[in-house]
Amino acid sequence: MVMHKGLINVDMGEGYGNFICGPDKELLPMIDHANVACGFHAGDPLIMAETVALCKEHNVKIGAHPGLPDVQGFGRREMKLSPEEHTANIVYQVGALQGFLSREGVELHHVKPHGILYGMMVRDIEVARAVWAGVPKGMSVFGLPGTHMETAAKEAGLDFWAEYFGDVKYRADGTLIVDRKKKPWQMEDVKAHVKQQLYDSKVTAVTGEVVDLPIKDYPITICCHSDSPGCIEIVKATREIVDEYNKAKGL
Amino acid sequence: MVMHKGLINVDMGEGYGNFICGPDKELLPMIDHANVACGFHAGDPLIMAETVALCKEHNVKIGAHPGLPDVQGFGRREMKLSPEEHTANIVYQVGALQGFLSREGVELHHVKPHGILYGMMVRDIEVARAVWAGVPKGMSVFGLPGTHMETAAKEAGLDFWAEYFGDVKYRADGTLIVDRKKKPWQMEDVKAHVKQQLYDSKVTAVTGEVVDLPIKDYPITICCHSDSPGCIEIVKATREIVDEYNKAKGL
Amino acid sequence: MVMHKGLINVDMGEGYGNFICGPDKELLPMIDHANVACGFHAGDPLIMAETVALCKEHNVKIGAHPGLPDVQGFGRREMKLSPEEHTANIVYQVGALQGFLSREGVELHHVKPHGILYGMMVRDIEVARAVWAGVPKGMSVFGLPGTHMETAAKEAGLDFWAEYFGDVKYRADGTLIVDRKKKPWQMEDVKAHVKQQLYDSKVTAVTGEVVDLPIKDYPITICCHSDSPGCIEIVKATREIVDEYNKAKGL
Amino acid sequence: MVMHKGLINVDMGEGYGNFICGPDKELLPMIDHANVACGFHAGDPLIMAETVALCKEHNVKIGAHPGLPDVQGFGRREMKLSPEEHTANIVYQVGALQGFLSREGVELHHVKPHGILYGMMVRDIEVARAVWAGVPKGMSVFGLPGTHMETAAKEAGLDFWAEYFGDVKYRADGTLIVDRKKKPWQMEDVKAHVKQQLYDSKVTAVTGEVVDLPIKDYPITICCHSDSPGCIEIVKATREIVDEYNKAKGL
Repeated sequence: MVMHKGLINVDMGEGYGNFICGPDKELLPMIDHANVACGFHAGDPLIMAETVALCKEHNVKIGAHPGLPDVQGFGRREMKLSPEEHTANIVYQVGALQGFLSREGVELHHVKPHGILYGMMVRDIEVARAVWAGVPKGMSVFGLPGTHMETAAKEAGLDFWAEYFGDVKYRADGTLIVDRKKKPWQMEDVKAHVKQQLYDSKVTAVTGEVVDLPIKDYPITICCHSDSPGCIEIVKATREIVDEYNKAKGL
Repeated sequence: MVMHKGLINVDMGEGYGNFICGPDKELLPMIDHANVACGFHAGDPLIMAETVALCKEHNVKIGAHPGLPDVQGFGRREMKLSPEEHTANIVYQVGALQGFLSREGVELHHVKPHGILYGMMVRDIEVARAVWAGVPKGMSVFGLPGTHMETAAKEAGLDFWAEYFGDVKYRADGTLIVDRKKKPWQMEDVKAHVKQQLYDSKVTAVTGEVVDLPIKDYPITICCHSDSPGCIEIVKATREIVDEYNKAKGL
Repeated sequence: MVMHKGLINVDMGEGYGNFICGPDKELLPMIDHANVACGFHAGDPLIMAETVALCKEHNVKIGAHPGLPDVQGFGRREMKLSPEEHTANIVYQVGALQGFLSREGVELHHVKPHGILYGMMVRDIEVARAVWAGVPKGMSVFGLPGTHMETAAKEAGLDFWAEYFGDVKYRADGTLIVDRKKKPWQMEDVKAHVKQQLYDSKVTAVTGEVVDLPIKDYPITICCHSDSPGCIEIVKATREIVDEYNKAKGL
Repeated sequence: MVMHKGLINVDMGEGYGNFICGPDKELLPMIDHANVACGFHAGDPLIMAETVALCKEHNVKIGAHPGLPDVQGFGRREMKLSPEEHTANIVYQVGALQGFLSREGVELHHVKPHGILYGMMVRDIEVARAVWAGVPKGMSVFGLPGTHMETAAKEAGLDFWAEYFGDVKYRADGTLIVDRKKKPWQMEDVKAHVKQQLYDSKVTAVTGEVVDLPIKDYPITICCHSDSPGCIEIVKATREIVDEYNKAKGL
């Protein structure tokens, strides 16, 4: 097994018009990858332009963060779309972001689906296939290892990266608990949660079981959310653990 | 002055979800350029995917047809946006279309703004500049010659094409009358209207004046609308005149 | 069992902005109840104003036709909303329609949910309860008898009307097959379909079984759709059968 | 001239989905009138349900706060609508809010248009007439005295209330400066601004002129905005001045 450096990704640009989501400017200096919202669940053209410029300024790699077409539900309400709709929605959103990247002379680094669309891909191979079908061949994609997201990504010839989570809890079956409104975390819990995933490739489910995370030869990136209450502290705590880990392992 | 071949452009893919706009399939065999709606005033990702595939099948060159963010008003209600918003809206829409073109291995041929946005550019140099600022350098753009659209396109280093119109009437000042609901045409009127523009570079305004169209060394493309009542007949009549013209002039 | 007069309901005002849905003006003289779209799956304020005025002119009773918040999917893509969202969406849409009715001095006659929301209520008692919770007490509501729509309507103290269908096919379990794009009908099939429901309280499912429709002491209204291909002929055919039935039964 | 008690109104429920606007719960105990957003520029059905319940709990009178159909622009981007569209948009939004009020057994107290729609009414009698045409006869409406809002309200048989402003600056012609993004205030400036309006019926314009506010026999309500930076302090300061004034004048 290849040893991969711990990295941190955060969703960015998830405001809409006058509405602001997270403290993007404060978070950018602490992270490696930004998943930029593409206007379907959040983000709008002006916010995308500003977010891409900010990420470039901070040398943060930029990924597309496509979601379901539902600003009101912030992409967290399941919608039954046809496979053709899922694919077209991804092509559209990734293409729109590419427009801004081209202007800034920056490459698209990855694609990471948002919210409930991510959860639908975990549970449903047809959705996973339909979404990944909209991503350009060979592109890096972030997802939950050991699930349909991984299987379908490999089928589609994509470069799969395994995600761990700083501020999302797991069920005993290894799937994630996505709340429409986030609850606050204690920093000690965030640190223990990240440490357990990073060092042991395990996680303690909300029901108490310690669950093995499916380890393969994938790069790892740890997700934190800019709309979690206390997100600046969460990202700081995660960065601390990740830096320790990278140093300890010589990565 | 260089002699340019007469060509025809039509807006395509201007449905939305289950709503259908024009008879795209019937029109495609008769036209040279399709302006594909990009989801802001009409069009959605699935319709864009289908429209791009159809155009490719018919060897019709594809342009982006960005509009104001207003499906309910079909991009025909003026909205006061900041210059930054206009630019970002164009980058977003052109990028989204490019996503579909890349998948089909087709090049973007041109950009032509839709509806009232087109009219706002004609009348307001700031809007014209802001919109063209969102188009990649060197790209062909279609617009109304002798107006701010032309001036701003040249300033921005874009390749300007002059549009004539099969089914839109002119005011005596050379600007267009864009109705939110289109009125029917007599075919003889369409033919005379197209002939006058193509052969004489003149047009008879609705108030009776014969107006000179500003002729420069630009390629010419004649616009017809797929949501005009009787659009199939209009395009047929326009095609007839254009083919005669091209033959007569050896183009 | 009380004998109820056969009546016909059709969804009306299901355009959006410049997009037109059905031939409302041609259908109105042939029907008894209009279900007016309320802006979430289709309809917009101007269309609602016009549709309410048209219905009043034709003495057609007006019901609210609330749907899921999804114009792009025409309310035919399932969305998982919380019960509180479902209830609030209905209160909002019914209230908005009441605004137009008050101005015209017309009473709201009934509420009939649209598309996949109707189907979700048929299958899921929680959705049925959440939707009916948004309807004013005592109001007439149209739905599929023998399903959760009926149970929840009675729980909520609403006046339930049983719907039959002129242009929708049934599964063997008595539920409806709602296509996102409608298929054409033969008029003889429409007539036989309506006759069988009206006279025998039975229906032949798509898989061939003859299914008993749950008959109770409810008023009956037969639904036809203005976006079905050939809808004018379908409503004409249905009207013919209904008028024969009413005459035969002295209703 | 009748002496009217000073009162305070604040826009409420201007979030959208997961996006939050102002600290509504903290403001409600300090105000007299809430203008509840109706879903077009902000607000959604669930937020409306919650906001109406909160206002009722705090005995705050509820008005409708209809805006242009533009969540992305927060109703602060001018849109050219037809008079029929303006009227229908108001009927729709006021009706939707009435749906929630009926359920809570609360009366609608007033209608106050939002953002740039308010500004368009101030400047354009046709817009003012079209908007007020959507309000039920005899209803109280809040607006800027001495402008087309007042003239058109009287023409339409509405009960006009004059608005003063705690956190909006005036031009020398008596019109308001509506920023798409609000700037912070010093509390001493807020107090002086409110005092001058309330006691002297004058205001100092941004360009330094002291302008007479057109005083007629109208009730007065002072508007503060929940999305102004420091809004809690602004409302507190305004409340203080208003309470002093009411006490001093025995109102």
